[in-house]
Amino acid sequence: MPRFDRHVFVCTNFRAPEAARPSCTANGNSEIHTLMKDGVRAAGLGNRVRVNKSGCLDQCEHGPAVVVYPGEVWYGFVKPEDVPEIVSEHLVHGRPVERLRLPEGCLNTPSCPHRQPPPAKS
Amino acid sequence: MPRFDRHVFVCTNFRAPEAARPSCTANGNSEIHTLMKDGVRAAGLGNRVRVNKSGCLDQCEHGPAVVVYPGEVWYGFVKPEDVPEIVSEHLVHGRPVERLRLPEGCLNTPSCPHRQPPPAKS
Repeated sequence: MPRFDRHVFVCTNFRAPEAARPSCTANGNSEIHTLMKDGVRAAGLGNRVRVNKSGCLDQCEHGPAVVVYPGEVWYGFVKPEDVPEIVSEHLVHGRPVERLRLPEGCLNTPSCPHRQPPPAKS
Repeated sequence: MPRFDRHVFVCTNFRAPEAARPSCTANGNSEIHTLMKDGVRAAGLGNRVRVNKSGCLDQCEHGPAVVVYPGEVWYGFVKPEDVPEIVSEHLVHGRPVERLRLPEGCLNTPSCPHRQPPPAKS
């Protein structure tokens, strides 16, 4: 059995509530990760699609964040009820779920509608 | 700033010594991850190359394991002294380090020179 058909990384980073940036989980536990793994297994893809926890993916203002390779498909603001659609559409049929994708303008940017730049130093 | 040029995942999984399979770290701390992050930053790639910890990448008998996207380039048995070469060759110049790649025959297989199948049930 060769490489993975798809490799999913679910951010499980957490920060204290008073931190300067938010984080994708409140305590390191990710329901998204659990549901994604269960969904992949139920779809019979357990050996072909790998679902991993990852450290901070640096899309903190858009979490919970998920990235799928190949293709570097970014999902943001993923809710538990979104997971079955990601599994059935993207992971089974190879069709990314457009409505859940993180807008290109929100990726790796210091400023976007969800992320404000830090205040200028006086 | 758009997508990452390269996205590196370093397995930081750990299991107890008596577990049936080995693991990539002894306690969840990964010198490989730390060195890789430091190396990327020192190379001035901190915004273009992301180095993440990941959960178990399922290459447990070949750890410490690292996978780099795009390309799903797998490295196995990575030693701290290998990291500068991965950074300078692969992450800076885009040339995977062939001598460190996990052989194709070792990837996602129940049996290879490093992994023995579990004993048959009697």
